[in-house]
Amino acid sequence: MVSVTGLDGVKVAETELSLVDGENGNLVYRGYWAKELALSHDYEAVVYLLLYGKLPNEEEFQSFRNKMASQREIPSYVKNIIDLLPADMDMMSVLRTGVSAMGTSKYQWEPTTDQAIEIISVLPTMIAYRFHKLAHREMVAPDAKLGHVENYLYMLSGKQPISAHVRALNAYFILTIEHGMNASTFTARTVISSQSELISSITGAIGTMKGPLHGGAPTEVMQLLDGIGTKENAEPYMRNLLEKGERLMGFGHRVYKTHDPRTLALREVCEQLDGEDPWLDLAVFVENKAVELLEEYKPGRRLYTNVEFYAAALFRAIDLPRELFVSTFTASRVAGWAAHALEQVPINRIFRPQSTYTGKMPL
Amino acid sequence: MVSVTGLDGVKVAETELSLVDGENGNLVYRGYWAKELALSHDYEAVVYLLLYGKLPNEEEFQSFRNKMASQREIPSYVKNIIDLLPADMDMMSVLRTGVSAMGTSKYQWEPTTDQAIEIISVLPTMIAYRFHKLAHREMVAPDAKLGHVENYLYMLSGKQPISAHVRALNAYFILTIEHGMNASTFTARTVISSQSELISSITGAIGTMKGPLHGGAPTEVMQLLDGIGTKENAEPYMRNLLEKGERLMGFGHRVYKTHDPRTLALREVCEQLDGEDPWLDLAVFVENKAVELLEEYKPGRRLYTNVEFYAAALFRAIDLPRELFVSTFTASRVAGWAAHALEQVPINRIFRPQSTYTGKMPL
Repeated sequence: MVSVTGLDGVKVAETELSLVDGENGNLVYRGYWAKELALSHDYEAVVYLLLYGKLPNEEEFQSFRNKMASQREIPSYVKNIIDLLPADMDMMSVLRTGVSAMGTSKYQWEPTTDQAIEIISVLPTMIAYRFHKLAHREMVAPDAKLGHVENYLYMLSGKQPISAHVRALNAYFILTIEHGMNASTFTARTVISSQSELISSITGAIGTMKGPLHGGAPTEVMQLLDGIGTKENAEPYMRNLLEKGERLMGFGHRVYKTHDPRTLALREVCEQLDGEDPWLDLAVFVENKAVELLEEYKPGRRLYTNVEFYAAALFRAIDLPRELFVSTFTASRVAGWAAHALEQVPINRIFRPQSTYTGKMPL
Repeated sequence: MVSVTGLDGVKVAETELSLVDGENGNLVYRGYWAKELALSHDYEAVVYLLLYGKLPNEEEFQSFRNKMASQREIPSYVKNIIDLLPADMDMMSVLRTGVSAMGTSKYQWEPTTDQAIEIISVLPTMIAYRFHKLAHREMVAPDAKLGHVENYLYMLSGKQPISAHVRALNAYFILTIEHGMNASTFTARTVISSQSELISSITGAIGTMKGPLHGGAPTEVMQLLDGIGTKENAEPYMRNLLEKGERLMGFGHRVYKTHDPRTLALREVCEQLDGEDPWLDLAVFVENKAVELLEEYKPGRRLYTNVEFYAAALFRAIDLPRELFVSTFTASRVAGWAAHALEQVPINRIFRPQSTYTGKMPL
């Protein structure tokens, strides 16, 4: 008998989907460095990689992109259901309900790749639909000519997004699409292990992602960036925080003991986009200055920048409202969940751990 | 590093809620034998026991019963949502969506016992509401004068149920309310471990319960009972099956290596109700005969009767349609899920296991 609270260090599955190597700061998706994919590919290509085990060639990519683009419409009865949900329901609960409502008989066991593609394709539309509905605005219909990430930005703002934003958000989507056996992915696998089906699996994972211990929120980093505001203000502002013994949000990570590969990739994207967006420029400047100051104030601590630092700068740049942070993370990660659920299917073994009874015995 | 597929034998939590002692055939809920509770208490009292850690006195029981009875109404917008769900959506998916739709802002972290009571109280009404809707019948409104289990039967049939059925189903509800760290309960704890909330937790658990490897279905036992039909036919019918090398469904269990305490309790209830329902009488007769024949055909194998045997007889007796088997199980187990979710809250540690990467490394 093994007794483990939180299951830290317990390997619950073999996976071909990703390697999270925190010691060496590596993140691999099915044989490719996540960082390189993020700098050179579209999100759809990485979805394809996770689902089919190889990168698409040009023809396969176009066909897959079109297939995803053609499935962005929310079924009309699901729209009606979303309309009925009270205005005080948070976006993650709306997604959980909207996805659950899609579970008609065609989603019964056994799960398929096509079902996964349908869920991945429609999720950003659900977010945008609810977002506009709550603001009493007309929904911006998805545009099948645009890529998955570009279309998401387009649906949110109603405007053709600038290419710097599309490139940066595309990199974010790829870098957060998959990350080993985190709590939501583990939920997706546990649910489907009973031979339930893909809708139940994704619904469960959304529920887990909703919790702040998992989905988190780059809100605090954003407050740091907002507080700094300009490059000139970066050093005095952060010195002041450090002198007062306060933390710099966005530095330090639980898994990665060295540079987080996702941070390195997002920084590289921001550097490539130099001059195209002031918030992305500010992020690179602030990060360099913060690392310098942390070495001065906390020598030897090696506090590496975490992925939320650049996520915050990016969300600030694209003006993403705070209530859409976790759901935007969900829109990228749903592909990882679906790929894990599909990988769990042939294992055909239900997760059925044990518990230790600490209550009284009957008299 | 521990590597365990399916997590068999891994203890993931301490719990005061139940002890499943398969070696000795014992099932304990918070210091009481489940079997004794099933023979002497109402379902509401055992819900109270799980949620508050002690059995209610008479005054507490009446007050708690009234509290549950007063919360049976489905919020009207949730009714409208259920009405919008396509007719080909299975009942478990309807429950998953209906419960998810209840997740307004009042359900945000931190979860409370009152939230648990609300979900437990309304679940049978959701089943009955959908059941009648699909049959184009008027919903039978819940009757606050009736107990939780009696009211469920009343809502399904529209008639005052006979007391034998109420007593038997009440015992079933108590005997299936909680069973250690099964897959759905584990899901409920995993989801809430991220500091999500109770609606997400229960929604996830419903998704896991839906799978046949977990929720199962006493359908095959029911076919056996239907095939037998009369006491006179029991021996020749089962002899014929055994001569052909076929299994007798309802005998043998993965966890209990001796008598399943739930089976013993359900049999005792059926015996007490002798003469009040022919299907319950037949079940006792068939079980005795089956045990005798199994000893003759498979000597020394000790195939003990599992709980689905009497569940099937009971569901047959109350004319429960097949599509309501797993959701009726859900209506009892939801209290166990909620109690586990609440027990997980103060642990404040996210379930975050690991996986082994078996894919390729980048070139």
